[in-house]
Amino acid sequence: MTSRLTSEELAGEFANATADEVVNAAVAAKLAFPQYAQIVPEQKASFLDATAGELLSLGDELLERAHHESGLPIARLTGERGRTCGQLKMFAQLVRDGTWQDVRIDAADSTRTPPKPELRRLLVPIGPVAVFGASNFPLAFSVAGGDTASALAAGCPVIVKAHPAHPGTSELAAQAILAAAQKTGMPDGAFSMVHGGAEQGMALALRPEIYAVGFTGSKAAGRALFDVAAVRSRPIPVFAEMGSVNPVFLLQGALEERGETVAKGYAESLTLGVGQFCTNPGVVVGLRSAAFERFLDLVAGHLAEVSPGTMLTCQIEERYRESVEAWSRHHLLRPIAPHRGTSTPALFATSGASFLCDPDLAEEVFGPAAVAVECESEEEMLRVAEALEGQLTATIHMAEADGRAAEKLVPVLTRVAGRIVFNGFPTGVEVSPAMQHGGPYPASTDSRFTSVGTAAILRFARPVAFQNAPENLLPEALR
Amino acid sequence: MTSRLTSEELAGEFANATADEVVNAAVAAKLAFPQYAQIVPEQKASFLDATAGELLSLGDELLERAHHESGLPIARLTGERGRTCGQLKMFAQLVRDGTWQDVRIDAADSTRTPPKPELRRLLVPIGPVAVFGASNFPLAFSVAGGDTASALAAGCPVIVKAHPAHPGTSELAAQAILAAAQKTGMPDGAFSMVHGGAEQGMALALRPEIYAVGFTGSKAAGRALFDVAAVRSRPIPVFAEMGSVNPVFLLQGALEERGETVAKGYAESLTLGVGQFCTNPGVVVGLRSAAFERFLDLVAGHLAEVSPGTMLTCQIEERYRESVEAWSRHHLLRPIAPHRGTSTPALFATSGASFLCDPDLAEEVFGPAAVAVECESEEEMLRVAEALEGQLTATIHMAEADGRAAEKLVPVLTRVAGRIVFNGFPTGVEVSPAMQHGGPYPASTDSRFTSVGTAAILRFARPVAFQNAPENLLPEALR
Repeated sequence: MTSRLTSEELAGEFANATADEVVNAAVAAKLAFPQYAQIVPEQKASFLDATAGELLSLGDELLERAHHESGLPIARLTGERGRTCGQLKMFAQLVRDGTWQDVRIDAADSTRTPPKPELRRLLVPIGPVAVFGASNFPLAFSVAGGDTASALAAGCPVIVKAHPAHPGTSELAAQAILAAAQKTGMPDGAFSMVHGGAEQGMALALRPEIYAVGFTGSKAAGRALFDVAAVRSRPIPVFAEMGSVNPVFLLQGALEERGETVAKGYAESLTLGVGQFCTNPGVVVGLRSAAFERFLDLVAGHLAEVSPGTMLTCQIEERYRESVEAWSRHHLLRPIAPHRGTSTPALFATSGASFLCDPDLAEEVFGPAAVAVECESEEEMLRVAEALEGQLTATIHMAEADGRAAEKLVPVLTRVAGRIVFNGFPTGVEVSPAMQHGGPYPASTDSRFTSVGTAAILRFARPVAFQNAPENLLPEALR
Repeated sequence: MTSRLTSEELAGEFANATADEVVNAAVAAKLAFPQYAQIVPEQKASFLDATAGELLSLGDELLERAHHESGLPIARLTGERGRTCGQLKMFAQLVRDGTWQDVRIDAADSTRTPPKPELRRLLVPIGPVAVFGASNFPLAFSVAGGDTASALAAGCPVIVKAHPAHPGTSELAAQAILAAAQKTGMPDGAFSMVHGGAEQGMALALRPEIYAVGFTGSKAAGRALFDVAAVRSRPIPVFAEMGSVNPVFLLQGALEERGETVAKGYAESLTLGVGQFCTNPGVVVGLRSAAFERFLDLVAGHLAEVSPGTMLTCQIEERYRESVEAWSRHHLLRPIAPHRGTSTPALFATSGASFLCDPDLAEEVFGPAAVAVECESEEEMLRVAEALEGQLTATIHMAEADGRAAEKLVPVLTRVAGRIVFNGFPTGVEVSPAMQHGGPYPASTDSRFTSVGTAAILRFARPVAFQNAPENLLPEALR
């Protein structure tokens, strides 16, 4: 296990923003908005590209700081830095390309009664955006992460509320963005960052200068932000991605054909990054059978070999330990791979009937713990699928022989989840145009949008139609 | 003036839905959803086309009933019926075409480390939708109106809460939809309607079976629905289009060049349909000048000739009369075209400074009343524009000479409004792909969507990505 700075050690170095500092950041973003919104695509793209360059040029300092604050291994952080820079460059390219603005043009028809006007419509930036850094991706879902990159790409100034678990990493990333902003001629206030906790976050979300919120984290914190935004005199959208249990359905043919491979893959996915991913597969569903029993034994075998990892914060580790201990005492759960203390993995089993009658068993435990659901029939498996709350992902493992069972399952999972994975695992979220990272509540607060991939930009834009406008007054993209 | 059935006369004929009836409708919609969501495009399109046919085949009965209930002239209702049928057919065509599902496909790359999965993404229906009929469009924004058509097109079952101001019209339209549903083989529960007021509406919006709300009406009612939806244990999106004052900016060149034409057009737009449009231009802004004074005199002349029309309900007429009387006594307003009682139009003037210091002057009065804002300078005109709340539309009248003033005004209005009209008037909302009918709050609760035009379907859909799916398990559109 690697060491990690504690919240006490971190607390002294970076002062929480004062109420005035939050106001100042919001006002600066408001003042920057008219100018930033109108910056030509090439210049905005160069700002995003330059941010990627500045992040890279921080070199080992950034990785080491992130390592000390999060406990995540350097290799993983190196990969995450690559992903972060890749996202910034992807949005730079999207800005240059321009098609994200969904230009629609209706030609005029003066012969019609009444005459049909000319209409030209495109997406414009929504206004200044507040972004909340996530603890589990100190780079890719934090200060210079996907929310910031997509909002800046849309033309929205961004204020980040740094996550208190990695303030130093946040400070370095903010400096990289500010350096890039200065080098590429962005207006003051196009980006800023404040340190703080829930108090500073709520203050920011309540500021009248803010038009949207991007957030990745817990259901409790995401819902609190959503609630605050909804009671404003002018409500604003909150895009909170709050995780889920990401159920994995094992169909009988797959279990019998390749139970060993699936068990190895499942154990790896469950324990990857000490189980601290939004897409961690915390529920696995199969038919009560020798093949499923063998699968669970194999998973238990793999889990027994996993050493305890360093979790992101002491609080997260403590909460994980408490949750798993509660599960160990739960009268409807049977330990398959017993918890060995601290952050070690754990696997429990229950019946389909028990899972259906106790919704607590479908609640996410953040970390490498899972519940296996043993169903009596394919019908019960479908009822389990139907009963699930909104999910980021749902996974099916199937063989040739499972065609009919899968045909019934897929439409149910399409109603439940944002992404359906076949014969794979949900961890590993591709950053690309067709990705959907977001699902029905409580996976996210707004299932119509994604927080990963190019479509993430759509969260921060709204359509405007120009009717019979002189060409020179149209936005460049509409001429 | 035409006569109109009073709420007392209407109350007896149609019973408000009981609590059980609301539950039953919601449960039926939930049960219908899996089947309705998967109906093939051609069949869904034929349902929408058949609905248009059934509406038409109701013939004069529908028009006369709507006339008696709303007081709207038969000619206007005939046009509105055409618009309603046109919308249904447009969405039928959109369903056949299929491009609204925004299909995105990322090819796999097995040579990459880690291998890149194949991703195929499309939009799927969000779930059963509650639609609230509007009083001011008893056909086009009511039972078989744009919200219902777009939700049904997306694949969502619909429950309409009929507007109590036109229950008989609603009943006829509902029968037309149900007849079409039966003829084209739609599942029971794909469409239903309940009668009632706020109590039934709130009960419906709180039902766990409902996944979204479409609404057109007042700010008070729209916000109440939004608030109820936001405090649900699973919050749902509310698309409330709540109207606005739709400011018209008259630049000096246009006033001098064609003040008479603009005055005539403005008076017509303000009084069209007794001013009962969401896009009614209730604020007109110009530079204090002889040309603007002359414009106001000309408008006053036109307004003096307008006879009182029948408003939609006694309550609306009463509220209009009270609001205009309050304006008549307002110390910051000067009557230009004095109110002549009941539903007659009225025009008041105020200074830019007064308008900026009293936000009440920018509040919508539903009906043919307007405030003219006389600005001291172009800078003050820009400040007036900046200070506006969110608007459905903003209009600019300009001539060659006004180029520079317009260049400054357009970016400000782009931040404020959903549609910017040049040298025209905001009333008359084209139903087409490039239309945007919706703007920043309080014009609508979600500025990212439109309630008119093909893009209205996007309110009721969410993306789902399929990762490495076998072809036969993909939705037809993704194969």
